Amino acid sequence: MNLTLKSPLDMHVHLRQDDMLKQVTPFTSSQFAGAVCMPNTQPPVDTIERYRAYVREVTEAASPFAFAPYVPLFFREDFSREELTAAREELFAIKLYPAGVTTNSEGGVAELSKIEPVLDMMQDLDLPLLVHGETHGYSPDREREFVSVYDHIASTFPKLRVIMEHITTSDAAEFLDKHENVFCTVTLHHMLYTLDDMLGGMFDPFLFCKPILKSPKDRAAIQSLVLSGHEKVMFGSDSAPHTEVMKRTEGMAGCFTAPMLLPMLAEFFEDHDKLELMQAFVSDNARRIYGVTPPERTVVLEKAEWTVPPRYGSIVPVNAGQTLRWKLV
Amino acid sequence: MNLTLKSPLDMHVHLRQDDMLKQVTPFTSSQFAGAVCMPNTQPPVDTIERYRAYVREVTEAASPFAFAPYVPLFFREDFSREELTAAREELFAIKLYPAGVTTNSEGGVAELSKIEPVLDMMQDLDLPLLVHGETHGYSPDREREFVSVYDHIASTFPKLRVIMEHITTSDAAEFLDKHENVFCTVTLHHMLYTLDDMLGGMFDPFLFCKPILKSPKDRAAIQSLVLSGHEKVMFGSDSAPHTEVMKRTEGMAGCFTAPMLLPMLAEFFEDHDKLELMQAFVSDNARRIYGVTPPERTVVLEKAEWTVPPRYGSIVPVNAGQTLRWKLV
Repeated sequence: MNLTLKSPLDMHVHLRQDDMLKQVTPFTSSQFAGAVCMPNTQPPVDTIERYRAYVREVTEAASPFAFAPYVPLFFREDFSREELTAAREELFAIKLYPAGVTTNSEGGVAELSKIEPVLDMMQDLDLPLLVHGETHGYSPDREREFVSVYDHIASTFPKLRVIMEHITTSDAAEFLDKHENVFCTVTLHHMLYTLDDMLGGMFDPFLFCKPILKSPKDRAAIQSLVLSGHEKVMFGSDSAPHTEVMKRTEGMAGCFTAPMLLPMLAEFFEDHDKLELMQAFVSDNARRIYGVTPPERTVVLEKAEWTVPPRYGSIVPVNAGQTLRWKLV
Repeated sequence: MNLTLKSPLDMHVHLRQDDMLKQVTPFTSSQFAGAVCMPNTQPPVDTIERYRAYVREVTEAASPFAFAPYVPLFFREDFSREELTAAREELFAIKLYPAGVTTNSEGGVAELSKIEPVLDMMQDLDLPLLVHGETHGYSPDREREFVSVYDHIASTFPKLRVIMEHITTSDAAEFLDKHENVFCTVTLHHMLYTLDDMLGGMFDPFLFCKPILKSPKDRAAIQSLVLSGHEKVMFGSDSAPHTEVMKRTEGMAGCFTAPMLLPMLAEFFEDHDKLELMQAFVSDNARRIYGVTPPERTVVLEKAEWTVPPRYGSIVPVNAGQTLRWKLV
């Protein structure tokens, strides 16, 4: 039995840079026809020059696969209208990180009130806004607390496409329908795991990520949203590699899921008897929402068992040793 | 400026066994005239023979300090009335671990309904019951959910002293006054930290413990309880050493706080202008509740800065590198 996907897309992935980028990019480019490659590198991808260099770096590492790197520019409060207008045709979107909430986001935006001039330009230029939507509050409440910020942005800029990245809570799922211009991505790990998988028994550093895993109730809400076939919901893995050493000794946040994304998604949809919804979730919704046309590719999965290796080079995947039912052909 | 404490007691500590016990016991015996030394060793201290051996092992390691090791027997469903009656004079208390909720508790009690015959014997023998009060539910809710179990036990056995160990939530704090026969211990780390200190930024494995750290609201409730000078509240550090390697690679739960307990407690009470409450919290309440008479000792702290070392042998303390204001003389 085979499952055929047309140009699947991962609408939120961290490919890092340099050697790490070379190591991890093929896991994404072999499965996906394109991906939103997040710009929180060091330094961040926050100028048009860095943008071009990063697109080139990813494209080279993605070879020989036909792969579209959709790189959102890292939000700067001092973007000028001239700068964004001149680059509009090249640009994909802009990613907003509230300062300090996740890996390499120290240079993000500290005061949300200061971002409105740039949001106004983005609305005029029809540049989508991708948001890591967490406050600086108590970790389990950060996403819930941020919903009012989404509400403010979406209602103040009704023509601006706002993408709530990696939503994890029932609150964000419920909020999705409040504004026509609000969309979201959902990760595999927030669909599958709760905080208890990370710390209910021994601590599993490979499930430590931002936003942190949530409650069974929140996970159920995210699963229901995906399984409803909602047209505003896109798959975005948020696969975020760190070396095993950095995970264990520096406590870095991020789940590495890239190598097994499509097999595990197939398993998830099959478990819920909804395999027919997978194509829209991993491609069609994103094509429509963003108006992108990725390379035409066919990715085939077969019903065959394989076991996730304990590590990929220096990186430990979230589900090392787990036997999966679907395999990339 | 000096602070003098009379026979301070740590009413909940893990001294482990063998080499680890030899290494960590002096941190406790040098500061405290006695401690409740928890019986979740491998195998657990669940027979009178093992009890005697463990008391001997701790006493030797505590030397040259005059130190009373109060060792609760690890709860077994099949304790007989003869067994407990014969050992009553020697025994201090019995510790109940719901199966699998914390380190080496796999042999604990799986069905709480089966424990009532033993609780009945304990009530008759006036043997206190110490409880790790967490359900097998979602981690942040485990203690809240267990309050109904405390309620059932305390009302079914109104003469049984029930000690809620290491309480962490506003729910447990509020429940304390519902029954005359319910008491509690409070740890230093649950007084000082929230879950965000462990995972709000990078992950800090040395703050990973069971019960997990809670919200700012819960911490405030625990602080208020301690600062109210409540007579049913005892200090119990739950200092729980693991080697750095085990913490980082096996994800073991437990905070090692033993070496700096009294200095940090003095700092806490001083910060809240309540130094006069410390003696009751670290000794008098426990003496009265348990009716114990520890060795008469005077422990003196002076107002002098020192810096917590990065590690004690193979063990990393929770607050490595922190400069403290009080120092043991």
